[in-house]
Amino acid sequence: MTFSLGKEFRITIFGESHGECVGALIEGCPAGTAISEGEIQRELDRRRPGKGLGSPRREEDRVRLIGGVFNGRTNGGPIVVVIANRDVDSSWYERNRHIPRPGHADYTAFVKYAGFNDWRGGGFFSGRITAGIVAAGAVARKLLAAKGVRVVAHLVQMGSVRAEEDVPDSDLEGLASQSPVRCASSKASRLMVKELEKAAAEGDSLGGLVECRVLGVPPCIGEPVFDSVESVLSHGLFSIPAVKGVEFGGGFGLSGMRGSVANDEFCIRDGAVSTRTNNCGGILGGITDGMPLRMRVAFKPTPSIAKAQRSVDLSRMEEAELLIEGRHDPCVAVRAVPVVEAMVAACLADLMIRSQKIARTGGG
Amino acid sequence: MTFSLGKEFRITIFGESHGECVGALIEGCPAGTAISEGEIQRELDRRRPGKGLGSPRREEDRVRLIGGVFNGRTNGGPIVVVIANRDVDSSWYERNRHIPRPGHADYTAFVKYAGFNDWRGGGFFSGRITAGIVAAGAVARKLLAAKGVRVVAHLVQMGSVRAEEDVPDSDLEGLASQSPVRCASSKASRLMVKELEKAAAEGDSLGGLVECRVLGVPPCIGEPVFDSVESVLSHGLFSIPAVKGVEFGGGFGLSGMRGSVANDEFCIRDGAVSTRTNNCGGILGGITDGMPLRMRVAFKPTPSIAKAQRSVDLSRMEEAELLIEGRHDPCVAVRAVPVVEAMVAACLADLMIRSQKIARTGGG
Amino acid sequence: MTFSLGKEFRITIFGESHGECVGALIEGCPAGTAISEGEIQRELDRRRPGKGLGSPRREEDRVRLIGGVFNGRTNGGPIVVVIANRDVDSSWYERNRHIPRPGHADYTAFVKYAGFNDWRGGGFFSGRITAGIVAAGAVARKLLAAKGVRVVAHLVQMGSVRAEEDVPDSDLEGLASQSPVRCASSKASRLMVKELEKAAAEGDSLGGLVECRVLGVPPCIGEPVFDSVESVLSHGLFSIPAVKGVEFGGGFGLSGMRGSVANDEFCIRDGAVSTRTNNCGGILGGITDGMPLRMRVAFKPTPSIAKAQRSVDLSRMEEAELLIEGRHDPCVAVRAVPVVEAMVAACLADLMIRSQKIARTGGG
Amino acid sequence: MTFSLGKEFRITIFGESHGECVGALIEGCPAGTAISEGEIQRELDRRRPGKGLGSPRREEDRVRLIGGVFNGRTNGGPIVVVIANRDVDSSWYERNRHIPRPGHADYTAFVKYAGFNDWRGGGFFSGRITAGIVAAGAVARKLLAAKGVRVVAHLVQMGSVRAEEDVPDSDLEGLASQSPVRCASSKASRLMVKELEKAAAEGDSLGGLVECRVLGVPPCIGEPVFDSVESVLSHGLFSIPAVKGVEFGGGFGLSGMRGSVANDEFCIRDGAVSTRTNNCGGILGGITDGMPLRMRVAFKPTPSIAKAQRSVDLSRMEEAELLIEGRHDPCVAVRAVPVVEAMVAACLADLMIRSQKIARTGGG
Repeated sequence: MTFSLGKEFRITIFGESHGECVGALIEGCPAGTAISEGEIQRELDRRRPGKGLGSPRREEDRVRLIGGVFNGRTNGGPIVVVIANRDVDSSWYERNRHIPRPGHADYTAFVKYAGFNDWRGGGFFSGRITAGIVAAGAVARKLLAAKGVRVVAHLVQMGSVRAEEDVPDSDLEGLASQSPVRCASSKASRLMVKELEKAAAEGDSLGGLVECRVLGVPPCIGEPVFDSVESVLSHGLFSIPAVKGVEFGGGFGLSGMRGSVANDEFCIRDGAVSTRTNNCGGILGGITDGMPLRMRVAFKPTPSIAKAQRSVDLSRMEEAELLIEGRHDPCVAVRAVPVVEAMVAACLADLMIRSQKIARTGGG
Repeated sequence: MTFSLGKEFRITIFGESHGECVGALIEGCPAGTAISEGEIQRELDRRRPGKGLGSPRREEDRVRLIGGVFNGRTNGGPIVVVIANRDVDSSWYERNRHIPRPGHADYTAFVKYAGFNDWRGGGFFSGRITAGIVAAGAVARKLLAAKGVRVVAHLVQMGSVRAEEDVPDSDLEGLASQSPVRCASSKASRLMVKELEKAAAEGDSLGGLVECRVLGVPPCIGEPVFDSVESVLSHGLFSIPAVKGVEFGGGFGLSGMRGSVANDEFCIRDGAVSTRTNNCGGILGGITDGMPLRMRVAFKPTPSIAKAQRSVDLSRMEEAELLIEGRHDPCVAVRAVPVVEAMVAACLADLMIRSQKIARTGGG
Repeated sequence: MTFSLGKEFRITIFGESHGECVGALIEGCPAGTAISEGEIQRELDRRRPGKGLGSPRREEDRVRLIGGVFNGRTNGGPIVVVIANRDVDSSWYERNRHIPRPGHADYTAFVKYAGFNDWRGGGFFSGRITAGIVAAGAVARKLLAAKGVRVVAHLVQMGSVRAEEDVPDSDLEGLASQSPVRCASSKASRLMVKELEKAAAEGDSLGGLVECRVLGVPPCIGEPVFDSVESVLSHGLFSIPAVKGVEFGGGFGLSGMRGSVANDEFCIRDGAVSTRTNNCGGILGGITDGMPLRMRVAFKPTPSIAKAQRSVDLSRMEEAELLIEGRHDPCVAVRAVPVVEAMVAACLADLMIRSQKIARTGGG
Repeated sequence: MTFSLGKEFRITIFGESHGECVGALIEGCPAGTAISEGEIQRELDRRRPGKGLGSPRREEDRVRLIGGVFNGRTNGGPIVVVIANRDVDSSWYERNRHIPRPGHADYTAFVKYAGFNDWRGGGFFSGRITAGIVAAGAVARKLLAAKGVRVVAHLVQMGSVRAEEDVPDSDLEGLASQSPVRCASSKASRLMVKELEKAAAEGDSLGGLVECRVLGVPPCIGEPVFDSVESVLSHGLFSIPAVKGVEFGGGFGLSGMRGSVANDEFCIRDGAVSTRTNNCGGILGGITDGMPLRMRVAFKPTPSIAKAQRSVDLSRMEEAELLIEGRHDPCVAVRAVPVVEAMVAACLADLMIRSQKIARTGGG
């Protein structure tokens, strides 16, 4: 029943979609880390829907830091970030509270919590809780940045549109930030916007694929076997609503390869050990090898669609039709890009503190 | 630095490939569970390589239960399973200890442990440690079986060969057990054996894809957000050596779908709520919905191949050629099938105890 | 660096004495538990200083529930309680920030956090953080009450005054609530008030001893060895500022006893197994035996006293005199009585959920 | 249901008194730590009963290291220590299995585990499991020694005999090691031996008090609030069978003191901040202040006595007389001295790694 992730850098998220607020509590951030509401706000602003492309719900997402920071620096205690909910309208949920939305947690929440779940806007199953993850990630990113580690994600697929070109690490952040759908390929980005508008017009939604890279990560991060980098990152990534697949390096493609092709041969580069290829995604035996991390995260289509769907009325135990009127993003993967970055940053910060690559106290 | 997985049903594995033994310590198994060395042995025997198809290392893998069982039933204390290593030859590793094998943890282990790692046979990074996972899984499977839950895995791809037909749940276990490569499709199985023999003859290895289904799982298992079923299972699955991808239900395919297709509409079946399709893999909002769980696990090709490879000599910091002479499976995914089952069983047992669907004490 | 306690019922406290607020986040409370701001407020009001007997700092301690409760019942998510700080004056701390108060955490906080600690009012080392513990305990007490378990504490010693009579369980709560120092003996209570006034007049402070009993606790709670009831409760109790000793049942007195006297012989009472005496404090082998739990908690005198004290100026590394002007309770043990109750309740709720004696979901 | 203690340096104990073995699994020991069976054996030998003073059960307690050590140094994996049980006679327990021994866990184990507990010799509730704690402590002591930290315990009370003199830190270890009852006062030691012989002759047993000091501990160890040094150490100490009280520094005596006496004033000594007295036992705000740690641990008398006792027959639910014939120490506190040292060492090693005062990897 915990809502926490991490061992030494630990994030706990709280709040409900239509409750008073959502937020995050962050334990284990080294004392002396400079952090401000403004820095967290900037990350949250990246999560807001682009004009005309996302949910019409208009949340200011105004960040308030109510604990853990003193004179602009962390004081060693829990950092608490609260983001008030403002633009709330629960009337549709009220009317349809006994009819679970297909693809949503409505049904499982109802059964698990014996009807005591907060059904307004999906309660704590709503994508809105990722605001807390992004806030926590903003703190993690500060820790990583002080060590020269950067986490960059971008959209590589939306529905039938795939970005084919392999964008170099150095250009990735800049290119993705220019796209309204956070796709680093300008050509694919344009096609994605069209695909998105078409799906939305048809009352439908689209799945998407997010690639994430971690640049500048030192070797030795991760623990063998059960706390491998893959284990820890996938644990976090599958906690993001709508994620149904995660792969590292060559991922599923490696299933069809031969060892002589898949193995990353070692070499000496600039006097240091390196690998010629990076099919392992920067992780060998669950531990970073010094190469960039690479992973891909599959998002299912937004389950809330405008088309009529078949469902059941749980109060009468009979089948029923459902017409969803709420305000929803036609492709959650777009807004998920900064969420993926935040989650990867939080998990890595945890592993780096555990590996003693980030000091407990300092003025980072 | 922990080697443990799980919160209430917790497994810890220990030992090294060429040390005295490998094994598992299992905490949290309800007292009164009937378990014998024979039952654990049966699971371990399933993990042994098929004749002519796997590593020529011949390990008896004789199970010894040295704690936690009294009069044939668990007594509430830690269950300790020890499996002695017998057929050990470390001479090749001794000679090549400064030259890390591509695709292996040799290099990351060397750096992480400052050279104090046990380099014989890969130490605790060896696939041999999965014997402990299988032993722990045998205990978990007893707990699940008492609740009518069965975990069944099979090989659906090896290299370029894919099993296309969708085998019904009821036939899966029987069909897979008849195949030397644990593939439920007899046609694909034959092709896989050929592909395996060819790769082995060429001194190469193959990747593979394992599908796992969980039948009879009740609804309500799993915790929202950070301990979602996907989070917990993927954490465990990515702890298995060579796993580089995990997906649930429609998985990566959902990235290319529309919501109107991907959503699993609810219906009433035999008086109970069910879904018409199962693209979500039996998991909504991180919680089981009562449908069978379905996941796929991508294995990279065995990194140890007979072909010469480029590497570096860490003692001289110069590039070097490496010729691996050890004894290795040409496709780890084959022997990984029971490991996947064991891991899924262990993670599910943990979630079921946490959800109070398995009682703490009983005579199961 | 965690600020959390408990495995399944977990409390995390946050905030600083002179920051924006203090509070608690509570995970693992079964969904459907009725809880209101008013109920939590009542417990917090018990923690406020009696008229003329405690700190002149006047905090309303107004409780706000900002997450985890829906329609008056817990919804399965984290419960978040925020208590704003209002009556804050940090000027004395500002002037003396380089001179650690003897007996306080000022010095260790300064060294541990490299000067980044919040030194205003002791930051998160302040006794004020126990407001969060009391809030969390209020939720735990609801869970326990639904199972017929009551936690009652009272003051049995203040400085040189000891309450000698052994008050029966049934009278304890009523008698203690009538005393301004929460002492169940009316005679001792009067003497304690005098002792308190005398110490305060002399600019000094007093230590105290709190006894806590748990009535109606079922057998089988607690885990052998490392999560024994004593281990878990003492872990929590020693987290309360100023606690320096904890004993169960006969406690330190058992060191001087013989086994034939100390052993609690078993008997049959009302058809059930019971013990004739209760020197073990209701705990055998770390597990409850069905008898009432009994423990005593030693509090040191409030370190903040009005008398001049010797200290050091850390900015010059030279000795210095310190005159504390802040507002402080002359005996923290008095206000600690409800804190002890809250902590014991929280730890027991955790153990009872882990033992599956409290269901995950219900309308308790 | 866990049998583990610690977060980063974690010990898990296993085995039963009359099972095949007892032992310990140790996770988180930095790779490269020199450790041998001989070093662990030496600590275990200190736990064996003195001639004529303890249990006549004669266990060789032969240590076997079956994992985690390679070429005489830890390899980063779990260290597994197994100690076989040899001198086992379960016949008395067999005959009396339905009659719980007063003061023992027999009754609570029976109820908790629904009769599936291993009742031979108390199963995993036996004092024999402390052999695993001592083994784990031997590893922890190596880590501490490399940082100049020493843990020394001694007996300060047995029944009515108290050692009054305050032995200086420097003499403590030498004096205690010369006493058959590990009491540093030679006068008290002689009286204790007499008291012990008298109690044994009368078929009775004695309680005892153990003081433990930690010398050379650096400041900054421990975490505020819930993982205070007192919380973590008491958690461990109360896990030792028969412990019923723990106090730090002035402990219970502080309840009767005034603040002006109890406060440890700061001073400059040899250019560093120090305190004139040490009533806080080296811990302020839950964090070490650089002074020696001091704590006292109260042990109840051995519950197994030769005198006839009243109990109940659980198979008939009627009262019964019990005559214990097993082999038992008349005062468990004597043999507990090295157990207290081991436990304190293990808990401190955990806190020091978490505070990054002990490096993850090294050749210590």
